[in-house]
Amino acid sequence: MSSNKADTIYIGKKPLMTYVTSAIIQLATMPVITIKARGQSMGTAIDVTQIVIRKTKPAFSIGDIKIGSESLVSSDGRNRDVSTIDISIKRNTP
Amino acid sequence: MSSNKADTIYIGKKPLMTYVTSAIIQLATMPVITIKARGQSMGTAIDVTQIVIRKTKPAFSIGDIKIGSESLVSSDGRNRDVSTIDISIKRNTP
Repeated sequence: MSSNKADTIYIGKKPLMTYVTSAIIQLATMPVITIKARGQSMGTAIDVTQIVIRKTKPAFSIGDIKIGSESLVSSDGRNRDVSTIDISIKRNTP
Repeated sequence: MSSNKADTIYIGKKPLMTYVTSAIIQLATMPVITIKARGQSMGTAIDVTQIVIRKTKPAFSIGDIKIGSESLVSSDGRNRDVSTIDISIKRNTP
C-alpha cells in the first residue's frame, strides 16, 4: 500500500462519489489511471469505473482489467487469500 | 436471465463453492466458460474465478474480462443502474 502513485486510486470504505471525484480530477491531467481494489471493495471499483465513464462520456474508456489474488496475514496469524481487481481508464484519442 | 446457456455461470446467492464446482464441471467438457455477475455478486465472481484457476492449475487461465452496466427497474418503479462483470476462463493449449 506504500506505492500511492498519483495515477492509482485505491478503493476503500469512503463514499462511492469520493472515488469518482478523485478519478475524474486525476483524469483531467493524466492519460491513464488505474482503479485498484481487493476483497469486498471490488464491486465498488466496478461501480466507480462505470460512473466515471458515464459522467465523462465520450472522453474516456475502459482499458485493461486484471484480476488476481494476494495473500494477507489475518489478525489470527493465518494466511488468507483475497482477490484483487485493477481497472485502467484511459483517455480516448480523438 | 432466460439465456441460461451451459457455458455460462451466473453468480447469485448460493455458497461460493457451489459455483466453483459448477465451473470446474463445465470446464471438463468445454474450452471456454463465462462467469457472469452483477451488483453485489461481482466480488464473488472474481473469488470464484481465482479459486477455479488455483484448484485446476495450470490447466486454465483467465481470458477476457468485461465490465458494463444494466438498467433495472426496481420495486418502486424507478430505473437503477447496476454494474456487471463477465469473466471468461479458457483452457490452456499445451
